[in-house]
Amino acid sequence: MRIGIIGTGMVGQTLGSKLVSLGHQVTLGSRSKDNEKALAWAAQAGPDAHCGTFAEAAAFGEAVLNATGGTVALAALRAAGAEHLDGKLLIDVSNPLVFDPAGQVSLDPVNTDSVGERIQREFPGARVVKALNTINCELMADPGRLTGEHNLFIAGNDAAAKAETVALLGEFGWPAEWILDLGDITAARATEMMMPFWLRMMRHFGNAEFNYSFRRPA
Amino acid sequence: MRIGIIGTGMVGQTLGSKLVSLGHQVTLGSRSKDNEKALAWAAQAGPDAHCGTFAEAAAFGEAVLNATGGTVALAALRAAGAEHLDGKLLIDVSNPLVFDPAGQVSLDPVNTDSVGERIQREFPGARVVKALNTINCELMADPGRLTGEHNLFIAGNDAAAKAETVALLGEFGWPAEWILDLGDITAARATEMMMPFWLRMMRHFGNAEFNYSFRRPA
Repeated sequence: MRIGIIGTGMVGQTLGSKLVSLGHQVTLGSRSKDNEKALAWAAQAGPDAHCGTFAEAAAFGEAVLNATGGTVALAALRAAGAEHLDGKLLIDVSNPLVFDPAGQVSLDPVNTDSVGERIQREFPGARVVKALNTINCELMADPGRLTGEHNLFIAGNDAAAKAETVALLGEFGWPAEWILDLGDITAARATEMMMPFWLRMMRHFGNAEFNYSFRRPA
Repeated sequence: MRIGIIGTGMVGQTLGSKLVSLGHQVTLGSRSKDNEKALAWAAQAGPDAHCGTFAEAAAFGEAVLNATGGTVALAALRAAGAEHLDGKLLIDVSNPLVFDPAGQVSLDPVNTDSVGERIQREFPGARVVKALNTINCELMADPGRLTGEHNLFIAGNDAAAKAETVALLGEFGWPAEWILDLGDITAARATEMMMPFWLRMMRHFGNAEFNYSFRRPA
């Protein structure tokens, strides 16, 4: 499968390398063609790893993965071009984190809107699925780092797109039954709003090697 | 111990009954002295169960528990009176849920503030601990309804108040090691912001009989 990744940070690179290792073709997209991080990644990730502009990455992908920061996601996807997103699965991994000078984190948008919803509204032709935004990128690509069942959450308006997401995550090692469907894309609010809690838990545990699971009655 | 509970809803009544069953004296406080729910509760919960105004409940308590809805918590505590809260442990269980006509939920305050913080700011003499607001009230009072370890989260500025909260929750059946300290009262933002996710999970599971736990490396 050909996959375009929007964003060249840790998340984009980690997921890109994982996808290449699984036999997929990946283009990592950045604002400019000569982005050093993207060039370095493509040089070391093998012949199936490419880099280019946001628009080239989106045009390349049969599916597109948004791995930018949530506060710049819309601008990056505008640069990618609606015509390169139409009809495609668009997995949005982002969280709109804003850090103030005192180190407190907040979200923008939040509460009555979310990045996932904004992307779906602005690109109605894309089949947006919010996914993976509740955990660290090493865990995204390797759920076996933790012991026992732990969960991912997906949200989106298109049932087929959610099924394709579950299948792709299955290649990463996520059993389908670990992936909980929270409903339409408005559920992206719920998972984005877990970020402040996740950051507190990271501080509590001292690292990002943890994920949610649920206890229920026997 | 004498405990004043502010609020006569499900949460206040459930925690009140639990506290009475553990041998504590409880006064359930409401806006008016003749609140029918509070009178009915006190009539059936035994000789250690009382009811009265917000001010009477707060004055009665060596510790005070805010079990109102988060959007009315400050008004209720103002009616209770700062002079009846000074120096006392004040456990805030509330979430500031706002339901719009379409059934979507949002929070007010949110993101850069929280009910827990607002209470601590307005009542600086109270020793506020945010706790229990991440689960259903039946679970609060009976963690053994679920199998395995599952977690509560506390936040507050006063270490002694947090230790007293852990001790009281221990009487409810919560092992101290299941209760994770997320930091000062600003961490109340993080746990209040889990509510939209919790409501989605409740819809997913079809009931409120679940709680968070965490998976980590072996």
